[in-house]
Amino acid sequence: MAGIANGNRNGVNCKSNSAGDQGHRKSCWYQEDIDDDLRWSFSLNSILHEGVTQYQDIQLLDTKPFGKVLILDGKLQSTEMDEFIYHESLVHPPLLHHPNPKSVFIMGGGEGSTAREILRHKTVEKVVMCDIDKEVVDFCKSYLVVNREAFSDPRLELIIKDARVELQTGLEKYDVIVGDLADPIEGGPCYRLYTKAFYEETVKPRLSHHGIFVTQAGPAGIFSHTEVFSCIYNTLKQVFKYVVPYSAHIPSYADTWGWIMASDSPLSLSLEEFDLRIKQRINGENRYLDGETFISASTLSKAVRKTLENESHVYTEQAARFIYGHGSNYRLNL
Amino acid sequence: MAGIANGNRNGVNCKSNSAGDQGHRKSCWYQEDIDDDLRWSFSLNSILHEGVTQYQDIQLLDTKPFGKVLILDGKLQSTEMDEFIYHESLVHPPLLHHPNPKSVFIMGGGEGSTAREILRHKTVEKVVMCDIDKEVVDFCKSYLVVNREAFSDPRLELIIKDARVELQTGLEKYDVIVGDLADPIEGGPCYRLYTKAFYEETVKPRLSHHGIFVTQAGPAGIFSHTEVFSCIYNTLKQVFKYVVPYSAHIPSYADTWGWIMASDSPLSLSLEEFDLRIKQRINGENRYLDGETFISASTLSKAVRKTLENESHVYTEQAARFIYGHGSNYRLNL
Amino acid sequence: MAGIANGNRNGVNCKSNSAGDQGHRKSCWYQEDIDDDLRWSFSLNSILHEGVTQYQDIQLLDTKPFGKVLILDGKLQSTEMDEFIYHESLVHPPLLHHPNPKSVFIMGGGEGSTAREILRHKTVEKVVMCDIDKEVVDFCKSYLVVNREAFSDPRLELIIKDARVELQTGLEKYDVIVGDLADPIEGGPCYRLYTKAFYEETVKPRLSHHGIFVTQAGPAGIFSHTEVFSCIYNTLKQVFKYVVPYSAHIPSYADTWGWIMASDSPLSLSLEEFDLRIKQRINGENRYLDGETFISASTLSKAVRKTLENESHVYTEQAARFIYGHGSNYRLNL
Amino acid sequence: MAGIANGNRNGVNCKSNSAGDQGHRKSCWYQEDIDDDLRWSFSLNSILHEGVTQYQDIQLLDTKPFGKVLILDGKLQSTEMDEFIYHESLVHPPLLHHPNPKSVFIMGGGEGSTAREILRHKTVEKVVMCDIDKEVVDFCKSYLVVNREAFSDPRLELIIKDARVELQTGLEKYDVIVGDLADPIEGGPCYRLYTKAFYEETVKPRLSHHGIFVTQAGPAGIFSHTEVFSCIYNTLKQVFKYVVPYSAHIPSYADTWGWIMASDSPLSLSLEEFDLRIKQRINGENRYLDGETFISASTLSKAVRKTLENESHVYTEQAARFIYGHGSNYRLNL
Repeated sequence: MAGIANGNRNGVNCKSNSAGDQGHRKSCWYQEDIDDDLRWSFSLNSILHEGVTQYQDIQLLDTKPFGKVLILDGKLQSTEMDEFIYHESLVHPPLLHHPNPKSVFIMGGGEGSTAREILRHKTVEKVVMCDIDKEVVDFCKSYLVVNREAFSDPRLELIIKDARVELQTGLEKYDVIVGDLADPIEGGPCYRLYTKAFYEETVKPRLSHHGIFVTQAGPAGIFSHTEVFSCIYNTLKQVFKYVVPYSAHIPSYADTWGWIMASDSPLSLSLEEFDLRIKQRINGENRYLDGETFISASTLSKAVRKTLENESHVYTEQAARFIYGHGSNYRLNL
Repeated sequence: MAGIANGNRNGVNCKSNSAGDQGHRKSCWYQEDIDDDLRWSFSLNSILHEGVTQYQDIQLLDTKPFGKVLILDGKLQSTEMDEFIYHESLVHPPLLHHPNPKSVFIMGGGEGSTAREILRHKTVEKVVMCDIDKEVVDFCKSYLVVNREAFSDPRLELIIKDARVELQTGLEKYDVIVGDLADPIEGGPCYRLYTKAFYEETVKPRLSHHGIFVTQAGPAGIFSHTEVFSCIYNTLKQVFKYVVPYSAHIPSYADTWGWIMASDSPLSLSLEEFDLRIKQRINGENRYLDGETFISASTLSKAVRKTLENESHVYTEQAARFIYGHGSNYRLNL
Repeated sequence: MAGIANGNRNGVNCKSNSAGDQGHRKSCWYQEDIDDDLRWSFSLNSILHEGVTQYQDIQLLDTKPFGKVLILDGKLQSTEMDEFIYHESLVHPPLLHHPNPKSVFIMGGGEGSTAREILRHKTVEKVVMCDIDKEVVDFCKSYLVVNREAFSDPRLELIIKDARVELQTGLEKYDVIVGDLADPIEGGPCYRLYTKAFYEETVKPRLSHHGIFVTQAGPAGIFSHTEVFSCIYNTLKQVFKYVVPYSAHIPSYADTWGWIMASDSPLSLSLEEFDLRIKQRINGENRYLDGETFISASTLSKAVRKTLENESHVYTEQAARFIYGHGSNYRLNL
Repeated sequence: MAGIANGNRNGVNCKSNSAGDQGHRKSCWYQEDIDDDLRWSFSLNSILHEGVTQYQDIQLLDTKPFGKVLILDGKLQSTEMDEFIYHESLVHPPLLHHPNPKSVFIMGGGEGSTAREILRHKTVEKVVMCDIDKEVVDFCKSYLVVNREAFSDPRLELIIKDARVELQTGLEKYDVIVGDLADPIEGGPCYRLYTKAFYEETVKPRLSHHGIFVTQAGPAGIFSHTEVFSCIYNTLKQVFKYVVPYSAHIPSYADTWGWIMASDSPLSLSLEEFDLRIKQRINGENRYLDGETFISASTLSKAVRKTLENESHVYTEQAARFIYGHGSNYRLNL
């Protein structure tokens, strides 16, 4: 059969020109619009799985630049190649700053990688992962080999529920609470888990003495940090005595990402102490994080520091309700 | 895990906004550059198979708009949805114009669809398919369900060899010879199977009395017909008394495609006779071709007719050798 | 400045490798999703103009494969390279079938190309172009050089109004009425100009004796003809004695397009008579259409003929109102 | 004119559905393959200029996410939005570490931004910019408004020549020499300006007492730093007593970028001293760089530090000649 491309092709029956062979381009691509004006594409090895859960669409792709990629509702969540940057950054700073973390609560984190990193800490006796989407959790359990061990660790307790409801209704206190949720888009699904009221009335009461809260805090690039990072920072500052923002460039996100630690106990650790605790407390070796890396990550650049100092917006239920309309319109115009 | 896209996403832990769901776009695409300035993309269901043969790269994709798609060296060959247009057009006009076609030779056609259409003709006793790439043939045999029956038809004889060599060395004559090869790019692999010398010295001697030669003839669109269609036509006119060009729009090619029949016996059939022979000779029902369709396909538009009348170029070995350099450069610049 | 691409680039200060130069790809592209699963891209020379009218977004691009391209609301309307196929097909068949067309009414056609083709007919004394979007008309007047002469032709009368209202309220009768509108999407803006009631009560009364109505009829490809082409055909059959559908592949549309002529007088013209009238009546030479071309265009392929014969759906206001919801949802899911 | 897209469009003549309007996507894109498997696309406002110089193709685009973008040979060089990160990082650390920089030599830098940042230093009396491509320099002079003042600064001396030849033949010594060249691809145009021999025999002899050499050092991301960053570092370590690598995420590059300072005098400056010198010596305010930012930038993450410690490859002419073939093939296979 003869095919297209204005005849400029190598055919079924004739030895083809090797230059031509080498010349032809990658043909299968995963493509994501990071925003309306910015598009990011990975060449594909294969489409491993596609499905629809009660809450979202789910895809697992095998890509050339980043290996296996988990996608929810058409948005990249995590890649085999560089998820360690995100998860080591989310988990280890708070657990290392805590004198002796025994119990940890994860809001979301259904992928399992956050639990995996937490469970590497020898001090940890109990991890509660509370994710609303059972199908995503089951999916990751069976497809993400790297997290299998974590999912079957006896210290892990899995709860399928809205983390907000779980934290409001439960009583147990935790040494560290980890927010591994979608960003606080006004009108978006997770907004209410980033408000001052939620931190004050729901999170803080569930932290034990010296307890530390950490949350992923959205993009923190030199331009993108104004979207949610600075507001999350300012909102946490209203509720906690000590707040430490930090960030790292994550290649598959095509951006620098942010995390924020917060506590009413001081959050300061010398480089040496940081590295010592890694050696003493964490099984296996970190691929990304150590003391120097954290110094670099928690020393923000001039532009970002300035925004954080001057940020005045605080996430509140009011704000949310107020902009609800915009939130959903925004979606339609995607 | 939190994901990118400036936070404009639905997360793991929170019920997502259904408008958002509906809003997100197809993310996996097959993309082909029809030429340097024209790109054609299909959204992907899955990548069924990728491999490399001795002669070419091979892919089988499952696409949303066209179903299964066969790709060689990054160029679309054939799609489940519309290959019937190409193969019914290539095969039935010559076989129907022949008074009683018993034996048919296919140059190329490793995909098996050409053989499938030929074998639908009750008069046909023997089909020789001569393709150089055993791996492509084996691949299509096992993956293209629609052609399985044809591949196992006792009337089909498969030869793995360069069709040119096979036709030069053999003696047997055929009622119809079918050219199902890549286009005659100067410097390209198949050029020498489109030259005047090849038609005169190799094809014609292997045609029986009333024998008919047909070949795919490249793009035949209002602009693209000048690339090879008109030259193949003019070259065949130097060798055969009667030459009939025809064309059809093939959606997956994003172009109109051309075929040319040639013989030293008259090639004229009334609409009625055409439809009668279809009924009498062909098992099953054509999806595309009948008498009226062929009248439309073989009545070329003004611009194409004019080019064909004025075409003076004839494909010769000389021309080939002469432009060889250009041929291969052209490839590198893809 | 050093630039990206893993260093694989030619720099400001050093003579670059010519293979590298030739190797790098087209970087600027116009991209359009023909539907959710099919994408069509042209490389760009430049973005000539972008604007927003009261009714729609408007772009004029200079593309490599098709020259100047007019785009409304992100959808390709017309290209410098091949608009002649569409406009010769829309205009000349009805005017040539009419014994002596003096007055013509255009519903829409703000681009001016339809008027341009009509005004090439020596018999034509008056052309009324009725388009709702003054800004688009003014834009095309000033940017589309090829239509300038037409816009300034004294026989052209331009009315800025909804064509439906104009036809309902006016009294004058026309020899030919041309529908050059968007397709009849249920819930879409133009639906009501394709209904049986509109043809019967609004169009037909405004046709003079022997009057002919013609309309663009949407995609007419082997798959796409079921979207609107067959329904427009069947709806016109309810209202007019003689209905003639025809089609042509338009490269920039990546599809075959359809038009339908309808009248209460017979619509039959011999090949010779068709070509004779072209010579006698039309100034300048057609690039696309002549007698043979029209025979090919009006001889539909088997699959399309079958759908037309079996089509039972008729566009009515009811149908429209009924599916309105679907119509607008459909938009949101774009 | 009716347009494509399966009729799913808003037309010329009918008021269109606003959801439809808002719904349609960006249609014009700049696209660059960062490597074979990774593609980066910006939506376009306009194509401001395209040309070809003696050495390279040149484009100036106006993009939505990054404003004006300068592209050479299809590779992004610099964007209006974030070039300040690259140029402040390249220029200010070496000039601030130097006790009193009066004369500076730029290898390349035809864009003018490097000169612009250097000329902000009050101590600087003379800047020599040596770029081989006069047309690129002239182009940037006339198109990049932000650098106009720099180009007309009397302290700037422009030489159109191969920087290597200029440094080899001249005699004058410089306080700072800045390498603003393409990366050292084996077989690429700039390779020879990154070799040990070049640093030892050509650069070092042209540095005055306390002189500092700085060079852009290619991508320095957690994965990409192994391409050239670690080799440039190791090569400089063979030649200079003190070598300081640092990096920053540059959004438009979709990567973290690297720079390396080298000198035979110590390169250490306290945070306070760094900020003080900025205040004393630099006119205007930095948008990106200050003391804290430099601490973060020059504190490399664990993975990068490890590669740098273990890097053994040194760029030499031999290595270059040896891999020449690969270099150019590599290009062809793009």
